[in-house]
Amino acid sequence: MKHLTVAALQLRFGADIEANRRHCAAAIEKAAGQGAELAVLPELHNTPYFCQTEETSRFDLAEPIPGPSTDLFGPLAQHLGITIVLSLFERRAPGLCHNTAVVIDRDGAIAGKYRKMHIPDDPGYYEKFYFTPGDLGFLPVKTAVGSLGVLVCWDQWFPEAARLMTLAGADLLIYPTAIGYDPREDPADRKNQLEAWLTIQRSHAVANGLPVVSVNRIGFEPHPTEKDYGIEFWGNSFVADAQGAFLGRAGDKEEEILLMTIDPARAEATRRIWPFLRDRRIDAYGDLLKRFRD
Amino acid sequence: MKHLTVAALQLRFGADIEANRRHCAAAIEKAAGQGAELAVLPELHNTPYFCQTEETSRFDLAEPIPGPSTDLFGPLAQHLGITIVLSLFERRAPGLCHNTAVVIDRDGAIAGKYRKMHIPDDPGYYEKFYFTPGDLGFLPVKTAVGSLGVLVCWDQWFPEAARLMTLAGADLLIYPTAIGYDPREDPADRKNQLEAWLTIQRSHAVANGLPVVSVNRIGFEPHPTEKDYGIEFWGNSFVADAQGAFLGRAGDKEEEILLMTIDPARAEATRRIWPFLRDRRIDAYGDLLKRFRD
Repeated sequence: MKHLTVAALQLRFGADIEANRRHCAAAIEKAAGQGAELAVLPELHNTPYFCQTEETSRFDLAEPIPGPSTDLFGPLAQHLGITIVLSLFERRAPGLCHNTAVVIDRDGAIAGKYRKMHIPDDPGYYEKFYFTPGDLGFLPVKTAVGSLGVLVCWDQWFPEAARLMTLAGADLLIYPTAIGYDPREDPADRKNQLEAWLTIQRSHAVANGLPVVSVNRIGFEPHPTEKDYGIEFWGNSFVADAQGAFLGRAGDKEEEILLMTIDPARAEATRRIWPFLRDRRIDAYGDLLKRFRD
Repeated sequence: MKHLTVAALQLRFGADIEANRRHCAAAIEKAAGQGAELAVLPELHNTPYFCQTEETSRFDLAEPIPGPSTDLFGPLAQHLGITIVLSLFERRAPGLCHNTAVVIDRDGAIAGKYRKMHIPDDPGYYEKFYFTPGDLGFLPVKTAVGSLGVLVCWDQWFPEAARLMTLAGADLLIYPTAIGYDPREDPADRKNQLEAWLTIQRSHAVANGLPVVSVNRIGFEPHPTEKDYGIEFWGNSFVADAQGAFLGRAGDKEEEILLMTIDPARAEATRRIWPFLRDRRIDAYGDLLKRFRD
């Protein structure tokens, strides 16, 4: 992997799927024009974040892979010569859907996919209703720009996921994300949540000696009913280097195309002086495979 | 565990072992006078950080457990009614030494010990020469003030260690530490190292929904020969809550007794809304037990 210019596309999305897809395509085209070799979209970018409620009608939003999105973004990737990380609501069979990241390489082909392994379920994020937990494991996707350790949103809280991608040779960790706060929450709580989210992802860079790219939605999406308020997606998309230092970080209000160049030599240099992979006590980690050690 | 007042004793140490022990005892007494129920000392507090070089004569610094340190701090703990985390150079047998944390409970008895599992070895930190990697695994020590997940320094870079302590029911993660920079290093590099160190430890709080106490040495310790410069221990001892937010943080220049009260209800509340232990994919973590997935 040579120097790599990554675009984190921090975007907002509305009710119209076709308009969302066009909006993504326009942002990718703009990023490519600015020199991006890899473009990462936020989680579930084709739709509003529909998991604020549990509605069977929302399964209509799911699509097969390959399907309409790969049909659109495949030729676009080839035309622009850019690698793209999509995040789709995958319809695999009736009653069997996943939250799936799809990597389109710059030749336009599907390089691979990752089905979100850790599925959240908390008020406003009812994902366990919609998404079957992934069954592809934690494997990076090999592309022309490197081996991409693509994980999705809730996965970011689990050091195990980042480690497994690292052990499988990932050059880069990537998190398409949809996270925000309830604007009625206490400002101190909101700050703590955001700070925790930045900290845990930057820590994956530190623990693994790998750069991290995290791309979040931006903007307020109202609750579909009057029963609740909605989510203010907090943006703050960022790129961190192999020691967890911010190379760049977007704001919490606006759409942004965050363009950053990653130097893979930094990962090599970091791991030489902080060789954590050398010292892991794999002989003593067996209980990581337990739910609890009781 | 009720509210718990913890004292992080950020101290400096010289060549005289007895003076170092008395210095620790005085700090513990002062902290107890201020209401501390748990006192944590920096790594290897009885001696200078002797791992800057590899010298067979330095094995003279090792002591048995129980031994002179537990003979001193046991009665002190009982007298003051305080739980103490010691960090000792343990002589187990000729040619078999460990870097061992010993927890003395407030009744004066040894509640348990932890032998450092991950051993570093990099210029100025030649620990693999002195310390046999621990063989007690990752188990918290049960005390009157809670179940203490005591780890030591280099362990802090390994999310696996923090997770295993959490899964075994730790109420608190504790890191006695000796880390610093070469004052000749580039200031930006020093800042990145410190920031990475804070980030990875705070991330263990986030990932596990547990408070973290990290206690570092302070001050400059010259290299024992003229061949190198020495280490400027960077202090920055801190206490973070179960979401990784700083409750308190010491500076990088002076000795400090950092007193903080931890509210265990915060861990409970954090884990209810961020229930990461619920969602771990233990069915898919098997390769964490491999050196590399090649």
